[in-house]
Amino acid sequence: MLRSIGRQWRCSVAFQCPCLCPARQQLPLAPSSVGRAISTSVGQQLKAQQQQQLQEQQQQQQMHKIDEEVSRLLALKAKLGGDAAPANQKFTLKTPKGTRDYAPQQMTLRQGVLDKIVQVFKRHGGEAIDTPVFELKEVLTGKYGEDSKLIYDLKDQGGEILSMRYDLTVPLARYLAMNKISSIKRYHIAKVYRRDNPAMTRGRYREFYQCDFDIAGTYDPMLADAECVKIVAEVLDTLDIGDYVIKLNHRQLLDGMFEACGVPANNFRAICSAVDKLDKSPWADVRKEMVDEKGLDGATADKIGEYVRLSGGAELVEQLLADEKLKAVPNAVKGLEGMQLLLKYCSLFGLEERISFDLSLARGLDYYTGVIYEGVLKAEPSAPASPVKELHNGDQALEQSSTVGSVAGGGRYDNLVGMFDPRGKAVPCVGVSIGVERIFSVLEAKFAASNVKLRTNDVEVYVASAHKGLHEQRLRVLNQLWNAGIKAEHSYKLNPKLLVQLQHCEEHQIPLAIVLGDAELAQGIVKLREVTTRQESNVNLADLPNEIRRRLQK
Amino acid sequence: MLRSIGRQWRCSVAFQCPCLCPARQQLPLAPSSVGRAISTSVGQQLKAQQQQQLQEQQQQQQMHKIDEEVSRLLALKAKLGGDAAPANQKFTLKTPKGTRDYAPQQMTLRQGVLDKIVQVFKRHGGEAIDTPVFELKEVLTGKYGEDSKLIYDLKDQGGEILSMRYDLTVPLARYLAMNKISSIKRYHIAKVYRRDNPAMTRGRYREFYQCDFDIAGTYDPMLADAECVKIVAEVLDTLDIGDYVIKLNHRQLLDGMFEACGVPANNFRAICSAVDKLDKSPWADVRKEMVDEKGLDGATADKIGEYVRLSGGAELVEQLLADEKLKAVPNAVKGLEGMQLLLKYCSLFGLEERISFDLSLARGLDYYTGVIYEGVLKAEPSAPASPVKELHNGDQALEQSSTVGSVAGGGRYDNLVGMFDPRGKAVPCVGVSIGVERIFSVLEAKFAASNVKLRTNDVEVYVASAHKGLHEQRLRVLNQLWNAGIKAEHSYKLNPKLLVQLQHCEEHQIPLAIVLGDAELAQGIVKLREVTTRQESNVNLADLPNEIRRRLQK
Repeated sequence: MLRSIGRQWRCSVAFQCPCLCPARQQLPLAPSSVGRAISTSVGQQLKAQQQQQLQEQQQQQQMHKIDEEVSRLLALKAKLGGDAAPANQKFTLKTPKGTRDYAPQQMTLRQGVLDKIVQVFKRHGGEAIDTPVFELKEVLTGKYGEDSKLIYDLKDQGGEILSMRYDLTVPLARYLAMNKISSIKRYHIAKVYRRDNPAMTRGRYREFYQCDFDIAGTYDPMLADAECVKIVAEVLDTLDIGDYVIKLNHRQLLDGMFEACGVPANNFRAICSAVDKLDKSPWADVRKEMVDEKGLDGATADKIGEYVRLSGGAELVEQLLADEKLKAVPNAVKGLEGMQLLLKYCSLFGLEERISFDLSLARGLDYYTGVIYEGVLKAEPSAPASPVKELHNGDQALEQSSTVGSVAGGGRYDNLVGMFDPRGKAVPCVGVSIGVERIFSVLEAKFAASNVKLRTNDVEVYVASAHKGLHEQRLRVLNQLWNAGIKAEHSYKLNPKLLVQLQHCEEHQIPLAIVLGDAELAQGIVKLREVTTRQESNVNLADLPNEIRRRLQK
Repeated sequence: MLRSIGRQWRCSVAFQCPCLCPARQQLPLAPSSVGRAISTSVGQQLKAQQQQQLQEQQQQQQMHKIDEEVSRLLALKAKLGGDAAPANQKFTLKTPKGTRDYAPQQMTLRQGVLDKIVQVFKRHGGEAIDTPVFELKEVLTGKYGEDSKLIYDLKDQGGEILSMRYDLTVPLARYLAMNKISSIKRYHIAKVYRRDNPAMTRGRYREFYQCDFDIAGTYDPMLADAECVKIVAEVLDTLDIGDYVIKLNHRQLLDGMFEACGVPANNFRAICSAVDKLDKSPWADVRKEMVDEKGLDGATADKIGEYVRLSGGAELVEQLLADEKLKAVPNAVKGLEGMQLLLKYCSLFGLEERISFDLSLARGLDYYTGVIYEGVLKAEPSAPASPVKELHNGDQALEQSSTVGSVAGGGRYDNLVGMFDPRGKAVPCVGVSIGVERIFSVLEAKFAASNVKLRTNDVEVYVASAHKGLHEQRLRVLNQLWNAGIKAEHSYKLNPKLLVQLQHCEEHQIPLAIVLGDAELAQGIVKLREVTTRQESNVNLADLPNEIRRRLQK
C-alpha cells in the first residue's frame, strides 16, 4: 500500500513536472523585444493584448496545476495518517480562542434580547434575509482597510478560496448587487468572525452576533438616516440596560474639517482613523499618532484638536456654519446642512434628549460616506462599583470614565454596493448594527448580581408516579398531554421516588405536577398539584388538558 | 516579480526534493529480514517496537514535509494572484459552492418551519444551547469515519487549528464532557458544514441547518428513545408535509445479525455502511459492494440479504426471536428485546401506524450504539408529477419510487461523550436531527406551485401624504405609532404621489393606511383606510393607536 503511494507520487512528479516548465513559460517577454518585432501602434496594442491574454492563460494553468498538486499532496498526507484520530484524546477540551458556548441560562437571556430587537426591526417594516457564513475571499477583499488582517480564511482544500464573513454589511452589498435589488429594508441577525484580541468579560469575542438593520434605496435626504437613529433609541429603550447617548456626526463634515485645517486629501482616511480612537485614548495620544505616525504637522493637528472637542445640538451646527474656516469648504457646509436636517428629524422623533452632535465621532470603517452614529452606554453614577465597571479593571484608559462603551453604531454608505456591480451602479444605503454581545455581558453581570434564576425550559406539567409500576400509565398520560399541545415531562426512570420527582418540579419552577396512583387511576382520576402552594385536587383524566389550561391561565 | 517567483520555485524543488526521498524512506522492511537479524523473542519484540517507532517518526517527517510543500505551493499560488484584490471587481458575483442566500420570502418560510419545530422541542422540555461554528480540529478527528474528508478546515493563520462543525452531535458531546454535565435535554438549531457534492434542488447543501434534540443521562431502557421517536412524529405532523413512515432498527441487532451470518467482527462497520446504502441502491449493487469491495463471501452476503429485506412490527420481532441463527447470538437477542420494548412504548404513544421495524436501516455514522431511526417522506400517490418528484429527474435509482427521502434521523450513542472525557466517563445519549433543508425544499416547491405570496414584513399601517409638504407631519404620526408599539412605515420621499403610496400598501398586503391632508390635520383628524375594502373613515389623531388596534383585532 505504502509502496504504491510512493510510486504514484514519483510518477506524478516525473510526468507533470509542474516545478520547472510553467514557471518558465510565464516569464514576460522583455518590452524591448516586443518593440523590435512590431512597427505600427495598432499592431503593438494588438500584440500586447495577445501577450497579456497568453500570460493570463498561463497563469491560470499554473494555478490550476498547483491546485492539482496540492490536492495530490493532501491526499497522500491523509493516507499517511495525517487526519487520523489520535489514539487517546489528550488535548485540552476547550472552545476555540475568543469563542464560547452558550449554556441554557445564557441562551434564555440571549433569546430574550434578540426577540426584543427583532420586534423593533419589524416595527419599522424590516424583512429578514440570511447569507452564508463564508464568502468568496474576493468579496471581502479591499472593504475593511487596515482591519483586513483580522479576517478568518478557510483552508484551500482544492476549490474556491473562502473567508468567514467579517460583518453583515459587505454580504448585504454583495446580495443587493448580485440580485440587482435597488431598494430593501432588511434586518439580519447572525454571527460574524474577527481574529481580534478577545476581551471576553467585556463582550469582545472572535465569534459574535451582529443585529443589523439597513435601508437601501434612492430616497430624499436624511429621512431613512433619522429612522435608523430612532431604531437605535428604541432598541436601547426596550432593552432597558441603562442611560445612553447617541453620538452623531457626518463623514463629509469630517473631511471638510480636515480640509479646512490643512490636512492633505490623501491623508483624510488615516487622520479619520486616528480621530476614531478618541473614545478610548486621550487627545494627547491621538495627536501624537497624527504627528509621529501619520506625518501631520503639529499646528494642523492642534486645529483639528480644537474642533474634535466640540459637541452639542442644533446651536453647535449654527455656530459651525458661521465658522470662517469651515464656511469656505463646500464639503464642510454640505455636512453641516445634512446634520441640521438630521437633528430636525430626530427632534420630530422625540430624540432631543438622547442625541449629541459630536465632532470626535469618526467610526473605523472605510465605507461610510455620510451620517455616522454610535449608541454609547453611560456609566451608572448611582452604582460606582457595579459589575459592569469592575469588568474594566486592568485596562488602562481604555474607556473614559463617563461611558461603558459603544453598543450600537452605523451610518450611511452610498458606494459599497456599486463596488460589486459590474457597471458600478450604486445603491445608497444607511444602516445600524446593534452590538449585542456587549449587551449580553451587561445583562449577564446584572443577572449574576441579582441571584434571579431564569427558567431555561417551558415545561408546564410534570407527570409523576406515586408508587412503583406506573411507567406505562405515565406514558399514556404524557401522550394525552403532548397531543393536546401541553408541555410535559417525566422521569426517565421506571420507578422514581415521589420525593425526587416533586423536588425536580420545585427546582425547575414547573408550575404543575400530576401524581398518578393505582387507587385514583381505578376511578379514572389523577391528582393535580400546584407546585408552589403544594395544593392537590382530583381531576378526571378525560378533563385533564382543559383543567391544566385553566390553571395555567391564572 | 514573476521571474523571482520562478526562481524560488525551482530552488525549493532542488533543495528539498520531497518527491523522491520520503516515499522511499517509508517502505516497511520485509518481515523476513527482521526475522533473520534477531534470535530471542524479547529482542524481537524490542526490535519490532523500535522499527515501529522509526516508521512512525519517518511518517511524521514525511507528513511535515508535505505540509511545508503545500504551504510553499499555496504561497506561490497567492503570489500568482490567487489571493490579491482584483483591480476591478471582475469576479463572478456568487455565493460559495453549495451555499445560498435566503431572500425575505424564503426566510419567512424557514422561520415558520423552525418555530414549529422549536414548539415541539419545548413541549418535551428541551433547553437551548449554542456552540461555536468551528471547533478545534482535534475535537472532530476520528468521529465520522469515511466522511472526515468532507470536513471544512480553516487556514492556519498562526493559532489553533480549527475546523467547521460537521454536525451538532459531536459539539454536544464535547460540551457535556467539558462541562462535566451528566444529564440534559437540549435542543440546538444551527448551521453545519460539509464539503459534499451539493444537490441544491433536493435540499442538499454544503451549509445547512440542523435541528437537533438530544436526551443525555443514565436512564432506564427505551424511555428516552421512544420519546425521540414521538418527537419525530410530532414534528412531521405539525409541518404537514405529507405522509411519512419512521423506520426503526437497532445497531446491536445489526451486529448480531452480521455475526449470525458469519461476517468477521472487524468488518461489521464496513458492511453496516454498505447496508446503509439500501435506501438509495438496489440490493444487487449493495451485494456487489459487500463482495467486491469489502471482501465478503457471496454466501454470507446472501444470508444478510435474506434479513435486510424484512420489515414489520412486533410480530417480526417475535419471529426473529424464534430464528435459530439469531437466537444463538447474544447481541442479536439483546437488540431484539430492545426493539420489543421500544415498539411497546411507541404504541403507548399512539405511533403504531407511523413506525416500521426495518432491518435494512443502518445509518451512516459510526457513533451509534443502540436504537436508530429515520423519518422518511412517502411520495404522494395522488400527485405523480409533483414538484418534489420532478426534482429527482436525472438521478438514477437514487431514491426508491415509494419515498422522497429521509427528513429526520437519529439514534442512541452511548460512547461519544466518553471519547472526550480524560477518564473515559460515559454519558449515554439518544437524539434526533430534523433535516430541515429538505423540508424547506419541499415547502418551497409547494409554495411556488400554489402562487400564494407570503408576506415578508409585518407592517400594520402605512402613513401616506395626500399632497405635498406633509413629510414632517408624517414623521410626527409615525413617531406616535412606533411609540405605541404599532408597526408602521412611510415613503422615504418628501412628496410621494398618493396613488404610488396606496399601491405600495396593496402590493405589500399592508392592512391599514393613514392618509394625511392639511384640511383634516387642521381639525386634529386623519383618514384611516382599510386597504382591501378601500373604505375610509375619519379618526381623531389622539385616538389613532387605539383605533388601529381595534381594527387589527377584527
